[in-house]
Amino acid sequence: MEEGLVVIPKATISRLPLYLQVLTEYHHLGITLVSSEEIAQKLGITSSQLRKDLSYFGGLGIRGAGYDVTCLLEKIKEILGMQKKRRLAIIGAGKMGTALAGYHGLQQHGLEVKALFEIDKGKIGTTIANIPIYPLAELPDQTVRLGLEIAVLTVPVAAAQKVADLVVEAGFEAIWNFAPIRLEVPDNIIVQNEDLVAGVLTLVHHLSRKIG
Amino acid sequence: MEEGLVVIPKATISRLPLYLQVLTEYHHLGITLVSSEEIAQKLGITSSQLRKDLSYFGGLGIRGAGYDVTCLLEKIKEILGMQKKRRLAIIGAGKMGTALAGYHGLQQHGLEVKALFEIDKGKIGTTIANIPIYPLAELPDQTVRLGLEIAVLTVPVAAAQKVADLVVEAGFEAIWNFAPIRLEVPDNIIVQNEDLVAGVLTLVHHLSRKIG
Repeated sequence: MEEGLVVIPKATISRLPLYLQVLTEYHHLGITLVSSEEIAQKLGITSSQLRKDLSYFGGLGIRGAGYDVTCLLEKIKEILGMQKKRRLAIIGAGKMGTALAGYHGLQQHGLEVKALFEIDKGKIGTTIANIPIYPLAELPDQTVRLGLEIAVLTVPVAAAQKVADLVVEAGFEAIWNFAPIRLEVPDNIIVQNEDLVAGVLTLVHHLSRKIG
Repeated sequence: MEEGLVVIPKATISRLPLYLQVLTEYHHLGITLVSSEEIAQKLGITSSQLRKDLSYFGGLGIRGAGYDVTCLLEKIKEILGMQKKRRLAIIGAGKMGTALAGYHGLQQHGLEVKALFEIDKGKIGTTIANIPIYPLAELPDQTVRLGLEIAVLTVPVAAAQKVADLVVEAGFEAIWNFAPIRLEVPDNIIVQNEDLVAGVLTLVHHLSRKIG
């Protein structure tokens, strides 16, 4: 099956990292075959949803036996584009930038933070988790020199749009945005918004329904 | 309209924080009326989707004039349960815990971090962003004393389930989980998973489709 020819729904893609996580757990436990019911139950989705999602990758299920954990894991990594390492730059060496620079989860998934960028002269020239902090003015040059592809925006809201413009100009293809603002970027730039407040407010809503 | 009687779809609830964000921006700019088209365009959703979402809150739109920004903002805050302040505890004073303890976005939305908990003796007794770090063993007592409601889990994956058990035992009603693992908790406990890796992997997928 030619992967490039299959259009996988956005909702399915958004669930793949969860499947990856669960399958990695099974893999570490030495489990080689797993049923759709087991995976589905662990994730709190229906097994028919899971089977539908996995059907996009071709016939990976073995009737009556379940799914081959290793095969499924490899296929999901392929679909997610994880075969190739990606080079990240973090713009903003504040608390969130510092936390992400030292976050093992990124490296485990083939994502290498190669540079941080700052305007604070006190931070420029130092390192966080062995990653150098460059002046923001060097963004265009370092992007080319280091082969940076994904810009992680951890700057204050007030600066986010301006920094996004600089990032696009510097040639980045993708932005992982932690600033709680919708960025305006050209159509060809991929933006993934990481809105921490949205997550906790959903929780607060459910909490207030429950306990008032 | 009695709010308690309306069942609002989960997908609508998940979009409310986005509406809140955009409306707050309009409010700060002194804009008092806004059309569904304007809001929808800013968020990259259809205006019919937006109108459907807002219809759950009763007749807030003024035909031909748009929505009253202040009214809509208040209503969304009410639905999200933001009238009441919520007290948070961060379990794990590592990099992510430190970043969240100093994160202004929480306080701006009525979420107060009152305590951090750790097992590292070098950290216990110190503070982060003026918030005291207590030993994990004091979790049950401090939960009652400080009136803590939401536990933020920023502990390593290997410790997450054990810490979740302690949190449930201590009487927390809700868990905001940053560990990349599905927690097993009683049905009455609200869990919001914040999977940073899932976000960036979705981005990587789109990037690999685009540039290979």
